[in-house]
Amino acid sequence: MDTRSSLPELNTCTAEAFVACVGDVWEHAPWVARAVFDRRPFASVDALHQAMVAAVRALSEADRVALFAGHPELAGADARAGRMTADSVREQGALSLARLPVEENERWGLLNRQYRERFGFPFILCARRHSRESALRCFERRLTHERSRELDTTLREIAHITRLRLAARFDNHGMQGIHGSLTTHVLDTSQGVAAQGMQVELFQLSQDEPTPVASAFTDASGRTAQPLLSGAPLRIGSYEIRFHVGDYYREHPPRAGDESDWPFLDVVPVRFAIDQPEGDYHLPLTVTPWAYAIYRGQ
Amino acid sequence: MDTRSSLPELNTCTAEAFVACVGDVWEHAPWVARAVFDRRPFASVDALHQAMVAAVRALSEADRVALFAGHPELAGADARAGRMTADSVREQGALSLARLPVEENERWGLLNRQYRERFGFPFILCARRHSRESALRCFERRLTHERSRELDTTLREIAHITRLRLAARFDNHGMQGIHGSLTTHVLDTSQGVAAQGMQVELFQLSQDEPTPVASAFTDASGRTAQPLLSGAPLRIGSYEIRFHVGDYYREHPPRAGDESDWPFLDVVPVRFAIDQPEGDYHLPLTVTPWAYAIYRGQ
Amino acid sequence: MDTRSSLPELNTCTAEAFVACVGDVWEHAPWVARAVFDRRPFASVDALHQAMVAAVRALSEADRVALFAGHPELAGADARAGRMTADSVREQGALSLARLPVEENERWGLLNRQYRERFGFPFILCARRHSRESALRCFERRLTHERSRELDTTLREIAHITRLRLAARFDNHGMQGIHGSLTTHVLDTSQGVAAQGMQVELFQLSQDEPTPVASAFTDASGRTAQPLLSGAPLRIGSYEIRFHVGDYYREHPPRAGDESDWPFLDVVPVRFAIDQPEGDYHLPLTVTPWAYAIYRGQ
Amino acid sequence: MDTRSSLPELNTCTAEAFVACVGDVWEHAPWVARAVFDRRPFASVDALHQAMVAAVRALSEADRVALFAGHPELAGADARAGRMTADSVREQGALSLARLPVEENERWGLLNRQYRERFGFPFILCARRHSRESALRCFERRLTHERSRELDTTLREIAHITRLRLAARFDNHGMQGIHGSLTTHVLDTSQGVAAQGMQVELFQLSQDEPTPVASAFTDASGRTAQPLLSGAPLRIGSYEIRFHVGDYYREHPPRAGDESDWPFLDVVPVRFAIDQPEGDYHLPLTVTPWAYAIYRGQ
Repeated sequence: MDTRSSLPELNTCTAEAFVACVGDVWEHAPWVARAVFDRRPFASVDALHQAMVAAVRALSEADRVALFAGHPELAGADARAGRMTADSVREQGALSLARLPVEENERWGLLNRQYRERFGFPFILCARRHSRESALRCFERRLTHERSRELDTTLREIAHITRLRLAARFDNHGMQGIHGSLTTHVLDTSQGVAAQGMQVELFQLSQDEPTPVASAFTDASGRTAQPLLSGAPLRIGSYEIRFHVGDYYREHPPRAGDESDWPFLDVVPVRFAIDQPEGDYHLPLTVTPWAYAIYRGQ
Repeated sequence: MDTRSSLPELNTCTAEAFVACVGDVWEHAPWVARAVFDRRPFASVDALHQAMVAAVRALSEADRVALFAGHPELAGADARAGRMTADSVREQGALSLARLPVEENERWGLLNRQYRERFGFPFILCARRHSRESALRCFERRLTHERSRELDTTLREIAHITRLRLAARFDNHGMQGIHGSLTTHVLDTSQGVAAQGMQVELFQLSQDEPTPVASAFTDASGRTAQPLLSGAPLRIGSYEIRFHVGDYYREHPPRAGDESDWPFLDVVPVRFAIDQPEGDYHLPLTVTPWAYAIYRGQ
Repeated sequence: MDTRSSLPELNTCTAEAFVACVGDVWEHAPWVARAVFDRRPFASVDALHQAMVAAVRALSEADRVALFAGHPELAGADARAGRMTADSVREQGALSLARLPVEENERWGLLNRQYRERFGFPFILCARRHSRESALRCFERRLTHERSRELDTTLREIAHITRLRLAARFDNHGMQGIHGSLTTHVLDTSQGVAAQGMQVELFQLSQDEPTPVASAFTDASGRTAQPLLSGAPLRIGSYEIRFHVGDYYREHPPRAGDESDWPFLDVVPVRFAIDQPEGDYHLPLTVTPWAYAIYRGQ
Repeated sequence: MDTRSSLPELNTCTAEAFVACVGDVWEHAPWVARAVFDRRPFASVDALHQAMVAAVRALSEADRVALFAGHPELAGADARAGRMTADSVREQGALSLARLPVEENERWGLLNRQYRERFGFPFILCARRHSRESALRCFERRLTHERSRELDTTLREIAHITRLRLAARFDNHGMQGIHGSLTTHVLDTSQGVAAQGMQVELFQLSQDEPTPVASAFTDASGRTAQPLLSGAPLRIGSYEIRFHVGDYYREHPPRAGDESDWPFLDVVPVRFAIDQPEGDYHLPLTVTPWAYAIYRGQ
């Protein structure tokens, strides 16, 4: 659906309108929306979501597995056959699972089959919290789990998926802790000031290949006007920030005559991983022409 | 020449033997060795070299230019025609100038022609102090200089070349400041100990493409058994050290239960430039699972 | 005056009320308030202050010196004779100038006489921006200046004094850059988290004797609930923050069994000076049980 | 004994000479030397010491306790009555135990009595490895131990005492790990060089009162010519190094015009504890006018 709703509207509308609005949050399972309709009014979007999850958790195992079965595999036949909901298409799209190299596609296909054989339901993952590499690593790890643990994990992943879908149905969802952020801050400790005008680039790394994600210049406070990442879960995986220290010091030389064709520091790469999609990652850089330090702040 | 000599031998041998030993240190100019023969005994190899440089510096400009003309161009026709001394072949070899991509080869050819037209002698550079990129950057910059400055610079470059050649003629040359070094040191500041057993790789970067140069593991003192670079001038240019921090902390977890598929720090790249071929670069890394700092020490 | 005013009130009240409110901002010179009364309305308190300063700056030198003469000396006879305004008493009070040791009192007396003889007006300083030590150091330096420079400096100091007095007359003065702040932030980089619950003490140092100024514990974000200093100009001078790192790590040991009667770091003192009373000083500490770093941020 | 010996001499001399040389290493127990005389030759001074310790360890508990009883208490009546060996006097002397304030003297007296009552032998500690504060803290902790543990600990302390006494009997004792060291290294990371000519002072802290221990200036490598401490065990306790950063930057200003009466950093105190008397403590400081970092290296 295209139009967004508000909690007061949803707390007062007809059952039909209610399901029209939030029924498709659960993949092929509008009954979940119907099941919580009588629990209105909800104090918050979070409360609505918790009620939905509770309804599913109350199902018998067989019914839960039936619900799981309605979900498309990642990189699976459903995707290729066009049998996914629009939400699923969007969510999986960013991982480019539909355009995998042959070998990797076969790897996913094999894992999907092994998983379904072992557990009796498809592998489900909240794709928006993952890079392709972390999705794959997670897949391999989950294949080694016990079935009872996977039943829990699958429901938790669906809770992640539906929480994000639900949030997108509202103008002001008011939910906390569903997004993450990545910010930086550059301090020129040779001159005791915030480093203004330094270019900062963010790349996502996949098998060490960098894909540009964001680029900005620091302002007078040494920060970028916008976080490098925000407004969505962070994708688990490997990243690199490149700080253009050499350009900065060409503009702000600590001492006249110190210019060199080969300044000690030019582009400073900082490589790190994110494993908390809803975390706040703050990576301040303190830098001089001859030294730097970085740490994970919050 | 294959056999190495000693200073006492050289201070007492015949003129013929003297020239046989050090005559080819100056490209196609054995007369330089003859010119200093009567100045024996030399207190040090350095003193011998200084005497040789003084003999050349005393020449008229025309004679100096004639001496310069005996040197091969970098990446020039001499190289391709096999007209270089064995020393020159070795010295230029590491830059792979004989196997340049067509476009870069044409660039070098053009610069060689422009330089020769402008100054009347070939572009001479101590190749062992350079990477291909720094040689090219230096070439372009020197093309903009005044002729008088280039006459000086050329002699200084030849002095670098001959100093290194002379050193190679001796078992114990005793010369200071003709080589550089690159060392590192890893301190695990989360545990207050030297980081033992961490892999450290050194790459030379050319247009951001890394070429592996050295690899080692830190010992109980947090250092590598050998310097990453030593025993030769450092090549001016861009480098990257990769510290395998993630592997180290998998072996030495600060706290049980902190393992993650995506540790915050895994391979920590430190990118820097060297512009002092005879310098000592010491790059200590202080690191925790969540932070690191690096500086240029000495 | 005890009651505070608002800009709209001041922009519309009678001349009498206007002077009653802001007349004593200028020491013994209510005419300054009268002189700007006709310039109403003022867009901001800042604009009012600037108009006042402009009125004084427009005076002849003789008149300006007469105005200066109305100000009490620092640690001078006026203070001891009770001839200061209440504002002056308060402003000078924090420096304890009325209770100086004999020797230091004589030093101030001598400087006051020398200054008055040299320049023909009393030494004036915005005491709220100074510690006693910085006031003294400033006094000695200003004694060496040219008279024209001191005329300017004195007016600038009076502008500082009156700006702060004026601000105190309003509930919402809205003036920027008249106060400074000192904040800190503690990051435990051995565990990748903000250091919560660490005691942080601030001392002002005078001849290396510490006077406690503030004390707080860090919260979940590693910050103190309130800045260590704020809501006033910072006093130029020397300070020390003491971070109780040892107590923190006793509560949050990185590894079981690492306790020692003599932990490497216990109380970590950070000694620094403030020389910008209106500056924002942010001093983040990154710390492990074995290392720490501090820098001036903003 | 005043003359020093050598291992070859000791391995070949008469029994009388042997005991004359090393008999008084064990307090009032020359029999220990006699007991190992037949075990000659010793491959090293260390081997000699180990043989002596083994001879004592082989004693019955009663005999060991008798040996312990021959040792003077710390700050005890023996000291005041002049009943200690010259070695003991020297060893305890540095702690000034003979000149304690009354209250502290009573505290030591009480502890000595409690210890002797509880364990049946005097409290023995290798005083050269302790400051007065650490000796006291250690005393209080050891009072809480089981007797069997104290029997072991006492022998270990006597082994420390005798090892150091034995080392002093030789010109070249060749023993490893009996001394500790404290060194520093200052890097000016705003300029990428070793900080030359910076004063570095070391203080021992006792109840936060600093006692000067060493002072030196850094050389061209940023190090002090001599370690701040070496050639003896380090005394367990609290220390402070003061780096005169402000003076250094007054001599080496990063930028002209940056001088201030109140530089951000002036004297930088680094407070830390030593708890490994035989450890190597290396504390490198990286510093700019606006930031610094310190860590424990080795």
